[in-house]
Order: sequence, then structure tokens, then C-alpha cells
Amino acid sequence: MRTLEAKDCAINTATLGFQAPINLVIDAVARHGFAGIAPWRREMEGQSLKVVAKQIRDSGLQVTGYCRSTYIPANTRAEFVANIENNKLALNDAAELGAQSFVMVVGTLRDLSSARAQVREGVAMMLEHARDLNVKLALEPLHPVYAADRSCITLAEEALDMCDAIEGPVADPQLGIFVDAYHLWWSATLKRDIERAGKAKRIFGFHISDWLNPTVDILNDRGMMGDGVIDLKSIRQIVEDVGYEGLVETEIFSSHNWWKKPMDETLLVIIERIKTSV
Amino acid sequence: MRTLEAKDCAINTATLGFQAPINLVIDAVARHGFAGIAPWRREMEGQSLKVVAKQIRDSGLQVTGYCRSTYIPANTRAEFVANIENNKLALNDAAELGAQSFVMVVGTLRDLSSARAQVREGVAMMLEHARDLNVKLALEPLHPVYAADRSCITLAEEALDMCDAIEGPVADPQLGIFVDAYHLWWSATLKRDIERAGKAKRIFGFHISDWLNPTVDILNDRGMMGDGVIDLKSIRQIVEDVGYEGLVETEIFSSHNWWKKPMDETLLVIIERIKTSV
Repeated sequence: MRTLEAKDCAINTATLGFQAPINLVIDAVARHGFAGIAPWRREMEGQSLKVVAKQIRDSGLQVTGYCRSTYIPANTRAEFVANIENNKLALNDAAELGAQSFVMVVGTLRDLSSARAQVREGVAMMLEHARDLNVKLALEPLHPVYAADRSCITLAEEALDMCDAIEGPVADPQLGIFVDAYHLWWSATLKRDIERAGKAKRIFGFHISDWLNPTVDILNDRGMMGDGVIDLKSIRQIVEDVGYEGLVETEIFSSHNWWKKPMDETLLVIIERIKTSV
Repeated sequence: MRTLEAKDCAINTATLGFQAPINLVIDAVARHGFAGIAPWRREMEGQSLKVVAKQIRDSGLQVTGYCRSTYIPANTRAEFVANIENNKLALNDAAELGAQSFVMVVGTLRDLSSARAQVREGVAMMLEHARDLNVKLALEPLHPVYAADRSCITLAEEALDMCDAIEGPVADPQLGIFVDAYHLWWSATLKRDIERAGKAKRIFGFHISDWLNPTVDILNDRGMMGDGVIDLKSIRQIVEDVGYEGLVETEIFSSHNWWKKPMDETLLVIIERIKTSV
């Protein structure tokens, strides 16, 4: 495998802790030579999307993804429908920003079966709108530790089954998944799942970070690549072997560490670690 | 489904926080009418196994499992071999206690592939000894949140693949799995996996507790049945539908709550909750 450089990589802005306005974040990411950025909806509050989109374009950055969906499942039909409408509006913004994918963290309910059925229905309701806008819908299977509060979809297999059920086999899918090493590294079926996703051309993104051992906070204690236990080189090899040619995107939720550091420091460490540890 | 009573259930002694010597724990579990107990190796330190075994027999309790294996994978061959020898000695004790199964939490390594290969080899090395002693080997797939520090086996599918690889299809398996709701509830393939396990007669035990939301400590903040999000009734239905006829065993690691309460109080709450929430 060739050594990764910044030009092969994207920065998910959550990595930088939302400590600066989006224009400064874009500046920093571009200045360090990264090829892509994945901004969050919260960063667009009070901003002109046109202006942000222009700045990103002028910086030469791709927008790998726009984060993230409003949770889909709800306890009432009205709330479910509102969630889908909200996601359609966010899709408009994703399109305006030039995002390749809309990143879908799908939500959950105590009744997992109902949650999964609602997600399937809701994603199907969004598909045509996404196609019209030319923004891919990327389901992100989350680590099973989030099954109670963030995502009823935890297995890559399950996400791929849902893609197949909604869209069927197609040459150029609108619906696919993000492979996030943090969420999937532990699985004995990782290679099988990634190969299936690659064959179906449903890998829309590849997220990296690391699993710290011990992990002191399951939500916001993700590690910098190389500081944890994930064999990121092997996972990258599998993802590339099945034909993924997109950017490698760093996404580190780390209120305990990296979010407290200056953006430039974090970005420099990422450039070093993608060379040595991914 | 019929309503569970204490006589359908076992108590894993970890539930009671190891606050009393094993003879008092056995007394309490039997006095409340439970049908089984699963003690831990740490409780046998300084005890005569013969005496403990006799007390359990005289109390009319089954020993559903003996907890638990020394972690198998190691960074040196010598350490690996020592781990297997250690487990064989524990198997002798399990047999002396009359345990139906030896509960195997298998351990892990940073290199998951190596860990899995060592577990497979190590379990195979234990199988004949277990057969001679008439103690079943029960692999316990753990929740993926433990993949870095406790178990390289996380999926029931993976555990069943390992059983098949080591023992092949047999009418009366020596090797099987424990279905622990806390570890497996989140999986979209739960039903498929339990059905496969049931068909192969490889379900050697069924553990219950609950997943609290939020969970403040991933190791020792398990909930009492009914206090969390797991649909225990549905899981029990699946397990019974595939022919499991063993006891339903409560295992709650709860340093934050239940371990601080008197044993009798916890046991009374369990009797109530198995009726209402399982």
C-alpha cells in the first residue's frame, strides 16, 4: 500500500471540536493540504450556505459528506414525518454545499424492530429527493454500544441488507454505507461485509480514528490513529482492495483530548499519523 | 409464554457482588427458591470444593455454570500453554462442583486474528478433557464494546462458526455458547443466530440483565431486568422456541447499584422482575 498523504484525505470537522467558525476551519483544512472536508449542520447556523460553498470550492476541497441526518424513528407518525421532512431540507443544504453524501446516523427506539422498519421506510422516502439533488445517502452503521441511543443499525450486513431492500441491485447506487473503522473494527465478519459493500459499489466513505483502551467515555473519547488498538492498515487494505477510491476521512470525537488542542496542532498530528498508522 | 418463577431460574453469584462467603450465598439463593447457581472461581479461594459441592447438592441447586475461563490468547507460546493448563485445572473444579458448563470468556489481543486463532486452538486443546469430565464448554460472545480488553469473540455467529470448526456437527455437543441478552440484544441477526444455535443444540445457558440508558460504566453498570431497554420477553421467546429448556440465569454486574444492596433485597427484586419483565 502506498503511504497516505494529506491530499488523499479529508477532515470531518467534528475532529476539530467546533471551536472556530466554519470559515476558519475550511481555511485550516485547506492550508494543511487536505483534499476534502465534511462539515456539520450545526456549523451552518447563521451562515450563508452560498458563501460557505463558494469558500470550499475556491479552496479546492471536496465535500465528502454532510453530517448528519435527524434521527428517523419516532413514537408518533407525525414526528416520523417531520423527521423525514427535516432530512429532506438538510439534503437541499448538502446539495448546495456540493456534498457527495449525506451522512445518516439513523437513530433508534426501545423497540428495535419498529425503529428498523421506520428507518427503512424513511430512507425510501428520501431516496428520490436525494437522486434529484445528486447527493448520495450514506447509512452509517454505528458501534453496537450506541444501539440504545443513536442507531438501531449496527452491523454493516444489516445496512447493506437495507440498501438492497430499498434500492435493489443497481449499477450506480444512490444508497450505500460509510465504513467507519471505529464502529466496525471488532467484527469477525468485517472483511466479508466490506467485500460485499465494495462489490455493490456501496462504499461511499471511509472514516478513521482509533479505539482507546481503556475508553473513558464511550461517546467522546475516540483516539487519534495509532493511539488505540484498531489495525487501521489492514482495514484500509480491505477497503482499497474492493475498489474504494475515495478519500480517507478522519473523524475523532474527543472532548477529553483533541478538542482542547489548537486546530493546527491536531491537523499536523493527523498528517503524521496517516503516514505511520493507516 | 408462561410466567417465570424462581424455580425456573438460576443466580449467577456475580449478581450479588461477592459481598458474602459462598456458603451464605448458596443459602440465600436456595432459600429464595431458585433452582440453580453459577459460582465464580474467586469464591472458591480458601474453600474446600468438596464441602461447597456438597452444600450445593444438599440445597437441591443445579450448577448452571462455573465462571470463568482464564483468558486464552497470549503474546508468547509459553503463556498461551499456561493459560490452557490453568483452564484445565479449573475444569477439574467445575466437575467437582457438578457444573453443567464451564463459562468461557475468551480474552483478546490487539491482533484480533491471532487472538481468534489462539482461542480456536486453545478450546480444541481443552475439549477432550472437558468431555472426560462431562463438563460442557460454553463460549460466551461478549458485547463488541469488550473487543479491546475481554473477548475477541463478539458475534454469536462467530462463536458458532468456531464450535463447528472445532467439533463439527454432532448429536450431543460438548461445545456451545451462552446466550447473554446483555451482549447480544442489539444485533439484527439475533434471531437467525439463536435459531442456528438451537438447531445445533449448542445453547448451554441463557443470561439475563438489562442495558441501562445511559450506561455510566461499561463494565459494572448493568441493569436489573426491566430497568433498561432490552426486550427480554422477545429474546426469551426466541430462545425457548428453538428448544432451550435450561434455567434462565440472572447475571448483573452492578458496582453502582445492586452490589451495594443486601443479597436478600436483590434476590426479591429478581423474583419480581422475572415475572414482569422477562
